[in-house]
Amino acid sequence: MPAPLPLSQQALRTADSPISYFIQKAIETKGLISLAAGLVDESSFPTADIAAVVAAILGDPESARMALQYGSTQGYPKLREQIVNMVCDADGVRPADANLSAQDVILTTGSQQLLYLLGEALFDPGDIVICEAPSYFVYHGVLQTRGVRTLSVPMDAGGMDVDALEALLIKLEASGEIAKLKLIYTVDYYQNPTGLTLAEERRPRLVELVKRFGKRHRILILEDAAYRELRYDGRDLPSIKKFDPTNQYVIYTSTFSKPCAPGLKTGYALLPRDLLGVVLNLKGNHDFGSSNLAQHIISRLLANGAYSRHVETLRGVYRTKRDAMLAALTEEFADMPGVTWTVPAGGLYVWATFPDSIPTGPDSTFVKRCLEEGVLYVPGEFGHVVDEFGRKPLTETRLSFGVSCPEQLAEGIRRMRRACDGVKEPAKRVEKRVGVLVG
Amino acid sequence: MPAPLPLSQQALRTADSPISYFIQKAIETKGLISLAAGLVDESSFPTADIAAVVAAILGDPESARMALQYGSTQGYPKLREQIVNMVCDADGVRPADANLSAQDVILTTGSQQLLYLLGEALFDPGDIVICEAPSYFVYHGVLQTRGVRTLSVPMDAGGMDVDALEALLIKLEASGEIAKLKLIYTVDYYQNPTGLTLAEERRPRLVELVKRFGKRHRILILEDAAYRELRYDGRDLPSIKKFDPTNQYVIYTSTFSKPCAPGLKTGYALLPRDLLGVVLNLKGNHDFGSSNLAQHIISRLLANGAYSRHVETLRGVYRTKRDAMLAALTEEFADMPGVTWTVPAGGLYVWATFPDSIPTGPDSTFVKRCLEEGVLYVPGEFGHVVDEFGRKPLTETRLSFGVSCPEQLAEGIRRMRRACDGVKEPAKRVEKRVGVLVG
Repeated sequence: MPAPLPLSQQALRTADSPISYFIQKAIETKGLISLAAGLVDESSFPTADIAAVVAAILGDPESARMALQYGSTQGYPKLREQIVNMVCDADGVRPADANLSAQDVILTTGSQQLLYLLGEALFDPGDIVICEAPSYFVYHGVLQTRGVRTLSVPMDAGGMDVDALEALLIKLEASGEIAKLKLIYTVDYYQNPTGLTLAEERRPRLVELVKRFGKRHRILILEDAAYRELRYDGRDLPSIKKFDPTNQYVIYTSTFSKPCAPGLKTGYALLPRDLLGVVLNLKGNHDFGSSNLAQHIISRLLANGAYSRHVETLRGVYRTKRDAMLAALTEEFADMPGVTWTVPAGGLYVWATFPDSIPTGPDSTFVKRCLEEGVLYVPGEFGHVVDEFGRKPLTETRLSFGVSCPEQLAEGIRRMRRACDGVKEPAKRVEKRVGVLVG
Repeated sequence: MPAPLPLSQQALRTADSPISYFIQKAIETKGLISLAAGLVDESSFPTADIAAVVAAILGDPESARMALQYGSTQGYPKLREQIVNMVCDADGVRPADANLSAQDVILTTGSQQLLYLLGEALFDPGDIVICEAPSYFVYHGVLQTRGVRTLSVPMDAGGMDVDALEALLIKLEASGEIAKLKLIYTVDYYQNPTGLTLAEERRPRLVELVKRFGKRHRILILEDAAYRELRYDGRDLPSIKKFDPTNQYVIYTSTFSKPCAPGLKTGYALLPRDLLGVVLNLKGNHDFGSSNLAQHIISRLLANGAYSRHVETLRGVYRTKRDAMLAALTEEFADMPGVTWTVPAGGLYVWATFPDSIPTGPDSTFVKRCLEEGVLYVPGEFGHVVDEFGRKPLTETRLSFGVSCPEQLAEGIRRMRRACDGVKEPAKRVEKRVGVLVG
């Protein structure tokens, strides 16, 4: 036996993703309908558009050379210019009026890398970050690996409850813990995991709050707008970033994975200028630049209109899927007391809550019954941190309508309903049945 | 003015790359011949091969779907299988005999990301890493951001001096500091920056040393084989990894950036199995997988033979460039006392040492004179850490023959020679001349 590995403190506090088990299950279980995976619709990939722009890029010696050589750490300048214009257009502002230019944009390996780099730039062990309850569970992994203490703020139909946030900030100020508060994280459009959107009037208030409570050090807002473009109802709301016209308080991040293709693995962010340099230095050590070819592909798709046409197509595809899932939930669960779900205006997720008699956790009878029936969801507790009393909600589920077709979505929900019936049986008998089935 | 940014300890110890200034200079200076850039030859990019495999991938709905969807954190299984076979073939071993399989391979955003992830997995502030003197300067950035203390071992024509390494290990054991030693880093084929290769008989000794001195905790070897395939003379040497048949002591990393195309930004590593899980958990937080499309492209290039044909072509291209640079060095500097240079059998770099009268640092007269003449190199001191007396060599230079054509390489060396003449003038007069030229 060799001597033990000399792991770092960071490695020791970094766990496997809680959903790895579920991904493995999904792969192993034949005929399973996964409402768990965060994958995207595959029938609508802009394959022909991508093939055409790759052929164009590689068909010209000059553009081929540029796309196949190393890029820069910050990313392809033309794409950064297109991004700043795209985001500012959506907010109805001119880049100059928002103190933004291509110099304030960074391209990353998906928006996930930006979330990670920002954690490195800002967090020491023991620092505090405030998230929505529930929040994006992969971000909890980032916070854990940095040794951060996560506090959470409840949500309602209008997203993060900003009054509750204010109360929490007052409490942190009174206790002196505000000195440890670095950042407030929000997925403010069609949130992963709940599908909820931060109400318009709450957006400027968020900026006001960090200004008011961040007198000694800056408290930053991380606006994760990954789903912004996947809007199926209503109008586009202004970003929180729009209410930060001096570009000092809000990091706006999004991705081309959801509205274009995850295989290109390209995300982006607009950052306060004094933070950008710090993040670039860190990224220089990580990889000195993400895939350059992917950036050139996306730049062409934006330039020739294929990207915006594709987003329009996607809206139709996902709207149909969302409606199929919502219709199935009504069909199957309207008569079941204590089952509620969100009705998202965009994104990829519905958040369903079950009665206290049906815990949904990773070791629950319900999740086993669902696997028997051939359906998988993400247990809601992965999105939560425990509150001050050591508790978290135990009967919630994230249901994704991203990857399955409408018929599978309906069948998946039917299977979940059948699985519920099973849970009503005495626990012992259910476990026995599982044993027989497995054996 | 907003309140100050609440930066982490890690951010505070992370500096800008020392060569950013040089990259900027290269961009700004018209007609400059850069012998500094680590870029690769552009005329030989396998553009048509890449275009063909992209068309094939996207032309088939099933493979298009696989390449455009999210991949896994560890990377495309087929490519991992191809890599383990390729590396084992080069070493003349069967994967099973080396305790290796596709499960032991990870795909990363260039090999740089692997260097970074491994640092996260292993290093706490105050830990010790041993490097060659000089070493890859971007890796010094990784060590700095992790708060690592770097010790170095001299090199000779056979690469890292393993006797000197042994003496250092004995000293660290005597002082008790060996408890802090985590890793020995070597670029063992045609090293960046010197072009030197670790001699064959030193390779098994390195493994013996980490076994002998790593009794209480494992001391790992990071074998950075990024340039292995760019071999112009002699035969391929066995990897250090080959002498670790239980797969417990050596991390072998390499990249497709140098032998294929940096724009695909895909690197890989073979890791001890108990370390792989830790690195995967960390990568899950970074990005949960590098560009999937790029991995599918490379897999096809490996499968259809285009990759090995391209490596063969590249060897010819770079051999010609290397010879052009070496011929120019002989032509221009053979008569100049105290100027020596390495004769690399592969890779992209020649390491030239100047007499004490010609310091080559970033603020030196020589570097200014070179810029005036229109040529740029990387100051050798970026590759060094200070020794126990606070000293480092100040008259070395890294000369890259990767990106320029043979004629430019010869002209670049001529300009360096002219710049030397300038340095012989009294320092004051030179500065005045610079002032006049700038003004």
